[in-house]
Amino acid sequence: MADSPARKTALAYYHAWTGRDLDAAMRYIADDIVCDAPAGRLSGAQEYRAFMAPFVQILKEARLLAAFGDDTTAVVVYDTQTVPVPSAPAAECVTVVDGRITYSRFIFDRAPFEAARRTAAQGLPATPQ
Amino acid sequence: MADSPARKTALAYYHAWTGRDLDAAMRYIADDIVCDAPAGRLSGAQEYRAFMAPFVQILKEARLLAAFGDDTTAVVVYDTQTVPVPSAPAAECVTVVDGRITYSRFIFDRAPFEAARRTAAQGLPATPQ
Repeated sequence: MADSPARKTALAYYHAWTGRDLDAAMRYIADDIVCDAPAGRLSGAQEYRAFMAPFVQILKEARLLAAFGDDTTAVVVYDTQTVPVPSAPAAECVTVVDGRITYSRFIFDRAPFEAARRTAAQGLPATPQ
Repeated sequence: MADSPARKTALAYYHAWTGRDLDAAMRYIADDIVCDAPAGRLSGAQEYRAFMAPFVQILKEARLLAAFGDDTTAVVVYDTQTVPVPSAPAAECVTVVDGRITYSRFIFDRAPFEAARRTAAQGLPATPQ
């Protein structure tokens, strides 16, 4: 199966940000991107970058689980290992126009991140040693 | 593009459970399914059904966002409207063998469900009127 245009863009984006190169990653993000993330809607590349930047900071490792797509839509599923949460899988369902992501539905579980934050606020280590 | 075997099974499963027919849905679940869900690993069809049943109970509506697959792997992304949470999107990345799901990586955000539970425990309505 020939690679689909949307999958190609979604994967290029994925490899850039998981390689911690947010500048390169943002080349695949449309200026007027709309992203429905767990905490609510993000509008525009600037808001989107502000959402991704802290995540890239805490990213230790990412592992691609699946990537599919057609001409305009792609889905990328991956697991991440982060500083506060050892396994934080996510799925991104994106719309791609002219090689850029114009819409993203971003799905992940905020619960373990919130739990790690609460633990940190209590001055305890995030995970038992 | 001809429909892929894994996508076909994943969609048949999706349509059955979102149609609130858990008996029909379980026909697409392998007896020894392993499911990595946000709260941890589920093993076997019985545990999996016990995980899905309460969700089917609170389901008001589901809307398919994307479905892709190949011979053995499929990804289904959808948004759900539930009694406690008005929009709870999810992604399932599944492995299919002989028309049954043998492995599922189930991704959704538990945070709004936990918030609704806390609100309910305080005797307040789940959403402001």
